[in-house]
Amino acid sequence: MVQNQPITIIIGTNRSTSLSEKVGIYYGEQLAKKKYPIHYLNLNHLPHDFAFSALYDQQNKNTLFNQQTDCITKGIRFIFIIPEYNGSFPGVLKTFLDGLPFPQSFQNKKAALVGISKGSQGATLALSHFTDILHYVGMHVLPQKVRLPNLKKNDITTITHHETYPGLIDTQIEHFLSF
Amino acid sequence: MVQNQPITIIIGTNRSTSLSEKVGIYYGEQLAKKKYPIHYLNLNHLPHDFAFSALYDQQNKNTLFNQQTDCITKGIRFIFIIPEYNGSFPGVLKTFLDGLPFPQSFQNKKAALVGISKGSQGATLALSHFTDILHYVGMHVLPQKVRLPNLKKNDITTITHHETYPGLIDTQIEHFLSF
Amino acid sequence: MVQNQPITIIIGTNRSTSLSEKVGIYYGEQLAKKKYPIHYLNLNHLPHDFAFSALYDQQNKNTLFNQQTDCITKGIRFIFIIPEYNGSFPGVLKTFLDGLPFPQSFQNKKAALVGISKGSQGATLALSHFTDILHYVGMHVLPQKVRLPNLKKNDITTITHHETYPGLIDTQIEHFLSF
Amino acid sequence: MVQNQPITIIIGTNRSTSLSEKVGIYYGEQLAKKKYPIHYLNLNHLPHDFAFSALYDQQNKNTLFNQQTDCITKGIRFIFIIPEYNGSFPGVLKTFLDGLPFPQSFQNKKAALVGISKGSQGATLALSHFTDILHYVGMHVLPQKVRLPNLKKNDITTITHHETYPGLIDTQIEHFLSF
Repeated sequence: MVQNQPITIIIGTNRSTSLSEKVGIYYGEQLAKKKYPIHYLNLNHLPHDFAFSALYDQQNKNTLFNQQTDCITKGIRFIFIIPEYNGSFPGVLKTFLDGLPFPQSFQNKKAALVGISKGSQGATLALSHFTDILHYVGMHVLPQKVRLPNLKKNDITTITHHETYPGLIDTQIEHFLSF
Repeated sequence: MVQNQPITIIIGTNRSTSLSEKVGIYYGEQLAKKKYPIHYLNLNHLPHDFAFSALYDQQNKNTLFNQQTDCITKGIRFIFIIPEYNGSFPGVLKTFLDGLPFPQSFQNKKAALVGISKGSQGATLALSHFTDILHYVGMHVLPQKVRLPNLKKNDITTITHHETYPGLIDTQIEHFLSF
Repeated sequence: MVQNQPITIIIGTNRSTSLSEKVGIYYGEQLAKKKYPIHYLNLNHLPHDFAFSALYDQQNKNTLFNQQTDCITKGIRFIFIIPEYNGSFPGVLKTFLDGLPFPQSFQNKKAALVGISKGSQGATLALSHFTDILHYVGMHVLPQKVRLPNLKKNDITTITHHETYPGLIDTQIEHFLSF
Repeated sequence: MVQNQPITIIIGTNRSTSLSEKVGIYYGEQLAKKKYPIHYLNLNHLPHDFAFSALYDQQNKNTLFNQQTDCITKGIRFIFIIPEYNGSFPGVLKTFLDGLPFPQSFQNKKAALVGISKGSQGATLALSHFTDILHYVGMHVLPQKVRLPNLKKNDITTITHHETYPGLIDTQIEHFLSF
């Protein structure tokens, strides 16, 4: 049996009980079927003051932040679930990245991006902006990005029962596993 | 005497004693010479847990956050000082924006953008990303953006003594005042 | 009676009988109702070799190109109809811009952007990229951009009979006329 | 002896005797030292009316265009030399891409990006925009992008004699060869 490399799914918002979390779990379930070990990092679990207590002079000194982000240091493959906030990614997702050691956190590692939105844009600009950032920190970004627009708040069935979304997700996962 | 409209200068990072703050003060001094009333909003003064205590269900309920951001609701013209972090704007700047009521906070108001960096990029991508966001929230963005690359940490003289930077800043301010 | 300023509508592709042209005409009809003089510039009317005969050392020397683009020099307000090609704007639209004298062609003038696509993106990235370019050449870009995704090839009724698109267009035009 | 895969270097402008061409040749020389077969595609060699004679209904019907672009169909690895024109890539580079069959031209192939400029930006936005496009067509983009700002027109020595540029280029090539 081939030992599959674990995959970390990052829930890109600190909103509690978010649709992003449900989307992340859906991705995890698909990967579990393929026998991949999954790890979740939900930004909701970060220390509430981490923007002040884990950045700049405090980088690497916040024990709780370090515990939560230990999976970044150790991981190789990441799936980012990114909801659209104000036409881009959540600020807290970038703040989290601003708190991570550079360049070892993401350099030469691999990312797949998933954008979700209630509106019609499907986080298109969020994924473009975040690609710029991940390229800056030296990360490989899967070209096949999934955009899921027109979702209903907190309702995962608008994805799982959608005519095309499960197929898009499955295709992306296949690309990611051979990336 | 014409009553000049006040201008709010937003220091786009929560880093303490940042070069961004010094750049903001430099802009304020230039505007003061032209008799414009100035207001400063330094993200360093936001409640340390505002990403959790002032967003989503807590939006508009954090008294300290509301006090600090009252100048947004009341202001019309804004200058954003944006340091380059990880190839884009600081996450905390977007988180701050994610906590503001939409669309009344910035819609139909006016922004000038200033990018600073130690590296050679001058926050070019940061300004592009942030323009996308400000356009999304309905704000007018001055096309003349100032990029100040190759700065030394905390040393404002690498700007004030620079051959071309003070002229660039002055030209931008002139454009902004007639914007 | 107030004399309304003429508005130039730029059909951002050289494809013949394009949906972009029909969208441009639709915008022109709405503006005509409001008594605005309209001028059209269809990139399909440019000399077929203009990428070689009107750029670089040949800039400003191609009489046919100059005749077609005379409306740029003289105009103040522009509406760009931008179809999505390969995830961004048509190359020919940028080539056209590369042939225009800088900075006098667009500096301090005003633009509204309209993105159209058969796919679900609605030219979102095209409009973001083109905004970067227009800002670079010193042009004011209306924050209210119209994105029209999921259109049928050459069928203007997928816009005119759409539940929300005519209202979006009307709102944008109102913003543009007071811009 | 291992047979190295050939690499196609695309000169991303149709300007004659461009600095981009010299930069492309410089890359080719470095790769030749490492025993990689090189192919050049200079957009200056495309038919002058290709924007009209090789796109849309004419796609794949222009024999001269097809001859020049045959290396795209057959190639796997590409280096794009991208000069900054009006704050982004040359329009002709995108027009060229708009003439290529989709998705087989670039899907699942690999690209390295090199941005050059006389100004201080180093084609930063050009590379970001072009990454969006290449990701849209399904291409893998090397995160390590080389930006070469502040060049003198047609003077390759401002690169080859530069303190840091040859090292940057060498590092990028090393990353690309193991990409």
